[in-house]
Amino acid sequence: MGTVKRTTARLVQRKVVVCGRIIMYDIDLTNAVAEIKRLKARIVALQVPEGMKKRAYQIAEDIENNASAEVMLVAEPCFGACDVPSSLFDMVDAVVHVGHSPIPSLRFTKPVIFVPARSRIPVTEQLKKAVGLLVEPVGVLATSQHLEELDDAIEGLESMGMKVKIGEGDSRISHVGEILGCNYTTATSIAEDVNSYLLIGSGTFHGLGVHLSTGKKVVVLDPNLEEPREIEQEKAKILRQRHAAIERAEKARSFGIIIGEKVGQRRLRRARELRKLIRWKRKDASLILMDKFDPEKLKTLGFDAYVSTACPRIAIDDVAMYDRPLLTPHELEIVLGVRRWDDYTFDQMTEEEF
Amino acid sequence: MGTVKRTTARLVQRKVVVCGRIIMYDIDLTNAVAEIKRLKARIVALQVPEGMKKRAYQIAEDIENNASAEVMLVAEPCFGACDVPSSLFDMVDAVVHVGHSPIPSLRFTKPVIFVPARSRIPVTEQLKKAVGLLVEPVGVLATSQHLEELDDAIEGLESMGMKVKIGEGDSRISHVGEILGCNYTTATSIAEDVNSYLLIGSGTFHGLGVHLSTGKKVVVLDPNLEEPREIEQEKAKILRQRHAAIERAEKARSFGIIIGEKVGQRRLRRARELRKLIRWKRKDASLILMDKFDPEKLKTLGFDAYVSTACPRIAIDDVAMYDRPLLTPHELEIVLGVRRWDDYTFDQMTEEEF
Repeated sequence: MGTVKRTTARLVQRKVVVCGRIIMYDIDLTNAVAEIKRLKARIVALQVPEGMKKRAYQIAEDIENNASAEVMLVAEPCFGACDVPSSLFDMVDAVVHVGHSPIPSLRFTKPVIFVPARSRIPVTEQLKKAVGLLVEPVGVLATSQHLEELDDAIEGLESMGMKVKIGEGDSRISHVGEILGCNYTTATSIAEDVNSYLLIGSGTFHGLGVHLSTGKKVVVLDPNLEEPREIEQEKAKILRQRHAAIERAEKARSFGIIIGEKVGQRRLRRARELRKLIRWKRKDASLILMDKFDPEKLKTLGFDAYVSTACPRIAIDDVAMYDRPLLTPHELEIVLGVRRWDDYTFDQMTEEEF
Repeated sequence: MGTVKRTTARLVQRKVVVCGRIIMYDIDLTNAVAEIKRLKARIVALQVPEGMKKRAYQIAEDIENNASAEVMLVAEPCFGACDVPSSLFDMVDAVVHVGHSPIPSLRFTKPVIFVPARSRIPVTEQLKKAVGLLVEPVGVLATSQHLEELDDAIEGLESMGMKVKIGEGDSRISHVGEILGCNYTTATSIAEDVNSYLLIGSGTFHGLGVHLSTGKKVVVLDPNLEEPREIEQEKAKILRQRHAAIERAEKARSFGIIIGEKVGQRRLRRARELRKLIRWKRKDASLILMDKFDPEKLKTLGFDAYVSTACPRIAIDDVAMYDRPLLTPHELEIVLGVRRWDDYTFDQMTEEEF
């Protein structure tokens, strides 16, 4: 037992290289090891985010040594808790999924053990700079990897005398204050009570999503950067790109409606509604199942334009890669004249669409 | 009923562009439509080979119009009957798989309807040229797409007075005379009765596989080309490449053993045996699950060398893409000193390895 404890303890921190920087993430396998033992799982698939892949074999070894299960590393990139490898369920007794919070409304036919990987970088200096940009009361939000820093930010803001609000999301969200790239309900739940948001996260996508769904000012605090940022400049650029895609799609005669194969992205119901809508407008529409998005696949299938009901980020983040218009469902509605451009928001996933 | 017949009849031939050439394939959906009706399937996934993707929406429409089922096109590339999209089974009532013969030993939890796509290009002229290269008795073989031409070739050779033999494969093979890139049992079953093989197919891989597993001369007749070919030149080149990969892997300290995620490639048992073997030789070995092979994924995982228990073609055909050695199981055995280079053969899949 002594050995087991020592080995498990060794796991608590792992250096991970993300975008060329070494970042410390807390990865505690204690619960996962206990759960594997409780389940008497003999074969386990291990899924880790891209930045941790080089260390995955060590995590696998730690599980094998401590839980006496055989571990298979999942090589495919993993983009979220929506991306649990359900296709492997008949090969394994359980899946260990590192790096994302569970999506409570997702049900699996095999046990999936979620292990958080959370960074804890001091945010005090940035918080001081952010205060001047924020308007009280402030809604505080974070993406999965930054939930530890969310707590620090709430404490920090309160200690500086700021009024702070924390929201709760719908059935896709497992933590207070947490948002996903496909779900801003945690933000909208407090939209009427706040005058701005502080979001602990990286990039522009989530911040812009919060802004478009609430209309409120958003300041993004990325613990790996030096300065908090507003998103005004990127907002204008992204909206220009979306407007251009919508305009190009207006000429399309045939639409491919893409349903994501990933287990938490299968908005079959929404896709079928969109198909009806397109046909009602007397244009051609086919349903397409796609796992990994790729401009070549769209070209090969040969439709004039595409609508993605899979992860909302794909159409926005990868816009430059696609020569055919790739729209979100809301954007298709604008193309077909059933939604106004003034009502533009980012696509969100809700239970009823599945 | 009149309408149904007409529409279905329209389907019997479809032009398909393969490698820039228009090729006629026979695709008869009559049985598939009847089977979908019999199953009362409401949602069907349609899987077609890459060369037919641009026409896939027409095949989908024909099924929708005739079988009153909703069809979803599978966008992911499909490489064989081993590559049926089992991950989608819980979204659909049935799968229509165009272009490959079934693998009888593969069992699915949802109905999979196999629709052959066979070319029928006259082979008489090439047969006449092939006769001079062949030594009687001749074993006649074909890949799935060329089973119609296999019949023509047998008739043709016999009418020219040649002695012909046809083999039967094991439980992965559904047609007499047929071979797969992972299974040459149809060839080996008659190896002692023939002095050469005529293979109707394209490329070098299958021909070399037959040659290495039987030691006999192989002439490849590709109906899309003008001349039958022997494979001596390519044989030397490929064996040089394999020898180089084996040599490089001899220096490796850590091995990633890849198990293919595709439903007909999951040689879990074989992978675990290889892991034991590597560890017995005091080197590190981890099990890896991979769907689409990609040099980037191997680099990201960071092992010194890899062994693939998935489709045997990947290591051979894509050798130039990989900077880490990617071996077949037989090749690993040579690296570890438990097989001799003189016993080199292509990797084959057997039931016991799954």
